[in-house]
Amino acid sequence: MLPKALDDLIESLSLLPGVGPRTAERYAWALFKRPQNKLDEIADSISSLHKRVKLCPKTFALISEEENVSPLYDNDRRDKAIVMVVEQPFDIIPLEKTSKFNGTYHVLGGAISPIDGIHASDLKISELIARVKDDKVEELILATNANIEGESTALYIQKRLEEAGLKVKMTRLARGLPTGVDLAYADQITLSHAFDGRKEF
Amino acid sequence: MLPKALDDLIESLSLLPGVGPRTAERYAWALFKRPQNKLDEIADSISSLHKRVKLCPKTFALISEEENVSPLYDNDRRDKAIVMVVEQPFDIIPLEKTSKFNGTYHVLGGAISPIDGIHASDLKISELIARVKDDKVEELILATNANIEGESTALYIQKRLEEAGLKVKMTRLARGLPTGVDLAYADQITLSHAFDGRKEF
Repeated sequence: MLPKALDDLIESLSLLPGVGPRTAERYAWALFKRPQNKLDEIADSISSLHKRVKLCPKTFALISEEENVSPLYDNDRRDKAIVMVVEQPFDIIPLEKTSKFNGTYHVLGGAISPIDGIHASDLKISELIARVKDDKVEELILATNANIEGESTALYIQKRLEEAGLKVKMTRLARGLPTGVDLAYADQITLSHAFDGRKEF
Repeated sequence: MLPKALDDLIESLSLLPGVGPRTAERYAWALFKRPQNKLDEIADSISSLHKRVKLCPKTFALISEEENVSPLYDNDRRDKAIVMVVEQPFDIIPLEKTSKFNGTYHVLGGAISPIDGIHASDLKISELIARVKDDKVEELILATNANIEGESTALYIQKRLEEAGLKVKMTRLARGLPTGVDLAYADQITLSHAFDGRKEF
């Protein structure tokens, strides 16, 4: 019913996370209405992605082709003894925006989730253990997501460090009420975390 | 904070309908994890879109480069005296899947929506009037969406046909309860349409 070229594009777009056939159709139509120079620009930024962007071999953050190591690591003002462990490269952005943290990052590349076929060996955990030794890390902030997969991954890292006989302070980001949310709308788990973590006024 | 190539890609992806910066980041990361040959395939299907897909000059459906007119029009088994008027090219797919309709289509390219800057002159309405004359159309099924913009567009087409002195039967798709939906979950407008359009049992 549709031209084959369009079917191919819709199929490709359906591979993006959370994009079903109807959304892919809307994207294809939106692209069709763009001028040729804009399409060429998008196509070029997709096909040159691997050439122009790579993973930092130390922190596994995304870096550009001319960099060897992430500028957030290779920087005298960043404390290599404090490492914030995150799941995905983009998790670094909101954390950096707080301007609160002057340590370094380590990107795992996901969280342990057997149901999705993601096992500990798929994540950069051995590389993290190596960094803890090499950089004499004193504190690991396990900033994995506040869900079952994130918690399992944090527990697994703790176990691996104990097995390796490495003594390092391990912390998790605080859990509680997010700013601007009414108490009445908070879920039970969030509220019970907020209660447990209450602070003197 | 991010390599420029990645920022560029995220910006391009943010132009897709309903895609904000966070979704664009997820898409960029998903693309980054794909092999180069897959990225080249997607890039090629985007940059060659205008070359390989075009609008039918008669019905404004999407057709492939080697076609001159939509195969749903240029076909002896399709009745050119009955025209289904739709907003978008992809609206044809679910209608064709019913196998109920053997007339032809006319794609308006949207619906009148002054708030989005879409005026009657941006749609293929004059081309529709011309078709009604040329093809001696007997019935127009105004299958624009069941919302304010779709209704306004249907009313506008009716007015234009009257002004042109063209006598043609105009119908709208039936409105009522969708299949599989509990009465208790139906909204008031749907229910009142279902009541008005009730049929003998």
